[in-house]
Amino acid sequence: MITRMSSLFLRTLRDDPADAEVPSHKLLVRAGYIRRAAPGIYTWLPLGLKVLRRVEAIVREEMAAIGAQELTFPALLPREPYEATHRWTEHGDGIFRLKDRKDADYLLGPTHEEMFTLVVKDLYSSYKDLPLSIYQIQNKYRDEARPRGGLLRGREFIMKDSYSFDVDDAGLEESYQAHRDAYVRIFDRLGFDYVVVKATSGAMGGSRSEEFLAVAEVGEDTFVRSPGGYAANVEAVTTPAPEALSYDDAPAAHAEDTPDTPTIATLVAHLNEAHPRDDRPWTGGDTLKNVLVMLRHPDGTREPLAIGLPGDREVDQKRLEAQLEPVEVEPMTDEELKEFPALVKGYIGPAYDGRTVLGEESESGIRYLVDPRVVTGTRWVTGANTHGQHVLDLVVGRDFTPDGTIEAAEVRAGDPAPDGSGPLELARGIEMGHVFQLGRKYAEALDLKVLDENGKQVTVTMGSYGIGVTRAVAAIAEGTLDEIGLCWPRNVAPADVHLVATGKDEAVFAAAERIAHELDAAGVEVLYDDRSGKTSPGVKFKDAELIGVPTIVVVGKGLADGVVEVKDRRSGEREDVAADAVVDHLVALVRS
Amino acid sequence: MITRMSSLFLRTLRDDPADAEVPSHKLLVRAGYIRRAAPGIYTWLPLGLKVLRRVEAIVREEMAAIGAQELTFPALLPREPYEATHRWTEHGDGIFRLKDRKDADYLLGPTHEEMFTLVVKDLYSSYKDLPLSIYQIQNKYRDEARPRGGLLRGREFIMKDSYSFDVDDAGLEESYQAHRDAYVRIFDRLGFDYVVVKATSGAMGGSRSEEFLAVAEVGEDTFVRSPGGYAANVEAVTTPAPEALSYDDAPAAHAEDTPDTPTIATLVAHLNEAHPRDDRPWTGGDTLKNVLVMLRHPDGTREPLAIGLPGDREVDQKRLEAQLEPVEVEPMTDEELKEFPALVKGYIGPAYDGRTVLGEESESGIRYLVDPRVVTGTRWVTGANTHGQHVLDLVVGRDFTPDGTIEAAEVRAGDPAPDGSGPLELARGIEMGHVFQLGRKYAEALDLKVLDENGKQVTVTMGSYGIGVTRAVAAIAEGTLDEIGLCWPRNVAPADVHLVATGKDEAVFAAAERIAHELDAAGVEVLYDDRSGKTSPGVKFKDAELIGVPTIVVVGKGLADGVVEVKDRRSGEREDVAADAVVDHLVALVRS
Repeated sequence: MITRMSSLFLRTLRDDPADAEVPSHKLLVRAGYIRRAAPGIYTWLPLGLKVLRRVEAIVREEMAAIGAQELTFPALLPREPYEATHRWTEHGDGIFRLKDRKDADYLLGPTHEEMFTLVVKDLYSSYKDLPLSIYQIQNKYRDEARPRGGLLRGREFIMKDSYSFDVDDAGLEESYQAHRDAYVRIFDRLGFDYVVVKATSGAMGGSRSEEFLAVAEVGEDTFVRSPGGYAANVEAVTTPAPEALSYDDAPAAHAEDTPDTPTIATLVAHLNEAHPRDDRPWTGGDTLKNVLVMLRHPDGTREPLAIGLPGDREVDQKRLEAQLEPVEVEPMTDEELKEFPALVKGYIGPAYDGRTVLGEESESGIRYLVDPRVVTGTRWVTGANTHGQHVLDLVVGRDFTPDGTIEAAEVRAGDPAPDGSGPLELARGIEMGHVFQLGRKYAEALDLKVLDENGKQVTVTMGSYGIGVTRAVAAIAEGTLDEIGLCWPRNVAPADVHLVATGKDEAVFAAAERIAHELDAAGVEVLYDDRSGKTSPGVKFKDAELIGVPTIVVVGKGLADGVVEVKDRRSGEREDVAADAVVDHLVALVRS
Repeated sequence: MITRMSSLFLRTLRDDPADAEVPSHKLLVRAGYIRRAAPGIYTWLPLGLKVLRRVEAIVREEMAAIGAQELTFPALLPREPYEATHRWTEHGDGIFRLKDRKDADYLLGPTHEEMFTLVVKDLYSSYKDLPLSIYQIQNKYRDEARPRGGLLRGREFIMKDSYSFDVDDAGLEESYQAHRDAYVRIFDRLGFDYVVVKATSGAMGGSRSEEFLAVAEVGEDTFVRSPGGYAANVEAVTTPAPEALSYDDAPAAHAEDTPDTPTIATLVAHLNEAHPRDDRPWTGGDTLKNVLVMLRHPDGTREPLAIGLPGDREVDQKRLEAQLEPVEVEPMTDEELKEFPALVKGYIGPAYDGRTVLGEESESGIRYLVDPRVVTGTRWVTGANTHGQHVLDLVVGRDFTPDGTIEAAEVRAGDPAPDGSGPLELARGIEMGHVFQLGRKYAEALDLKVLDENGKQVTVTMGSYGIGVTRAVAAIAEGTLDEIGLCWPRNVAPADVHLVATGKDEAVFAAAERIAHELDAAGVEVLYDDRSGKTSPGVKFKDAELIGVPTIVVVGKGLADGVVEVKDRRSGEREDVAADAVVDHLVALVRS
């Protein structure tokens, strides 16, 4: 098809939109691909829609290739199925809820596990019907607290979500692998730099779980990777627990005055001055920091939690919440702290001097979870539960026993990979896809069973596989743009060739017109800048660079010498090609 | 593509769903095309989605052919633009409203006039940018009081809505005509019986307006047509007003006792007995019936209205409301009637004996609108505002003057067409498309102006053009089904050929498999019933008839004689075709 700039519904902008911070967001607006309709809610203009449809087509082809069948659920959904799985409540403020004229409750679907489960229950009843993979490409809604980056984190967005249904775990493993392989093909074709990382499965429940992340500075997800090939979303990184130590030779715990030590750094300095170690100086890692938080459950109830971790590490809120989903974590206020008289602000420790202060069986009754590094036999400097004092040589397993462990401490570059594959490096990414094994959570909640070979009712096991389709458009843009504009991979560009006619010479426009038609006839998508001579060549070139079609062809003065210019948008390389050979040249280029 | 029944996500049902009354609704559910998710909200199963996509593709092709450009707006929309055009309120209970986590108001878009207007205002500023036609195919939401007929009247549904933007009326006329022509091509290709009728433009405002109705008994719209080619939605039918009559020779109005005349019929009988006419008997058409209603404005305020019409006709609520949109009409209760002491129930008339009872300047102060047939000089029998009495020879223009006219009376078969093209017949239809000239209503409300050739700001004039895409699927089904199942036109069928292998003979399945592959290679979409011999031929035939692919090919016992059966689903005609010639035969059939 020939798309003509003279009539294309497009206005490019010289200036960045005021509300955009992320480069792809700025350029997608400036180049006329999208427009903001409300926070996190976008209109797709013709160029944007072309890219979106091309992404969708790639996803559809690869889904069909693994035998997944497409259907479409409504976006407006009744409350009842989400009630059955408790997600009506668990989603908290994160979903849009509404009532119809009869006062019945509805939501705008954030994901469709329930609906998929129910439709299979409606249609199928035997193991012979399985395995089954079904999917949709459809509008989703989440009432994000902070919509961000244009399409990167929106409130109305398009997802491809598929679900697999199997009669047993081996089947689920196969379905999972088929989807994972399809995702690799999809992201390869979409043409951006991505990593597959281990992930937590969060509120969805389930076991095996991996994310496909587009590697990008602007990404909201932090992931780690090791030289030996370990890769994980930072929420999913597990801390290797050291071996338990013997504490036979450990001195008894002893409290010391530690005046003016409001921070770990001042405490460490004081220790090195007043209580120097023989072997090495004290470090923050020798101290046990106890952080108190309040857990807010979806039903609104609140519960305190104490977290013990080495003093040289902060609590990573996202890692912590990933362990506790759907619970949200809030700081404990001073007011709330006062309700626990056993806790002395600034000097909180689990136990000392015959008193136990943290733990379900302690004076405070507050559940106490520690970092996996806080193993039996390790010795810590921590609060003595007395103002102005810390206790030294407090030994885990001798002086206190936590209620359990939790992955709440920040992960740092250089930390060892849990599989021993070397030190971790940290990077940022955009979550583009997520494959995970849901297992039987939804099937159990909604009673999806089939008859097995022996005529017995068995609960179906499910996998869930998502791709952020609108987000992919932004991620591809983000991963490929340069300082002058967008720069699409050929597979998803809004056109194959951006043909520019410059000047006012009628012969130039006639030649360009001929080239456009011949390309069109050869099945090449042409964006043809046929605007009259009143639009300067400079404006046309700038628009072409901003819009980012991979090949730019300029028909201009060179035509007098029988040549047109073919320019590669990415490399900037130009070459003159004979005007009567340029169509063949371009067809070959586009199909290569 | 080959779609295999052995793995297709499908279950056909023997029994009609309990909640379905309309034949197409029953069959679309029974044949596994759709499933109900909530009242008026449907899930599209694979077969249904194929038909939907084919309808969408036809719409897209014809939109592109008139140069309309596709974009997509969100479904979740902010309140502000709808506030500016008063539609936030005017839509009443008919739209879904919701709040986000920051308590901001949103709606689920029922139509997108505001958004289209604003995006053009955002991008364009000069007459040189126009004309422009842009459209989307997108989910719409209406909180219908009575969702009905499955996809026929849903609460979540897909519409194609386009808008044209022109600098002047002549341009709008051209854009309108281009869309109208495209609609004719679209509905011709969709393959159902339709009529184009004059329509009112309702809450949308505007002038020229036509609807495309699928002719169907189950339709909710009534339309009329005349032998001379007049066609209109019943709401849009205008009543030819007779010439005013001279009343110089009319006797003075005189009240008469009319005991026991609670109905028009009893009144007419009494008149014929007690006051016989010389020329002919009295009829209901000689009486003037005065109907009192309450108008409910979108802001909730209520206002009385009196409607005077010939006694042989009822008020048609839909016609009345079409004149008054967005006002809703409710009956006046006895309680409310009592607030007007001048009105004597059962004997209400506009005026008599020096008193004026109906009209803005009357004792009641109630606005009084009459049927267009109630012209100056006509004489009526009507209530005398005294219990037990009617007045005769009450003359319009002499004894009373209404505040105006209104098209509220029912239209009846045999009524004259307003353009003199003969008597009207009535029929029912499903509204499939609506083209209308919005004019400047939205452009004015949202300040969409462009510079004209003289550098002056002029307000843009708009056209609005909708097609109910999901509704079209139901309408096509409804218009083509028969007593044994669905019966799709070739252009929109979920497959080109339904290939059935029967029995248990491996040679049969091998031959069917070969045919399927050869058809697929030739670009023919095959639905292949490859289910094993355990599924009886009877079940397979019944499923094929229910699903309604236009050509059914049976590979079975005949194969031993080298033939397969090719059956036309609609006519039921069968022919034996040589197995080795059947692919060519089918390719020719499908492409014919």
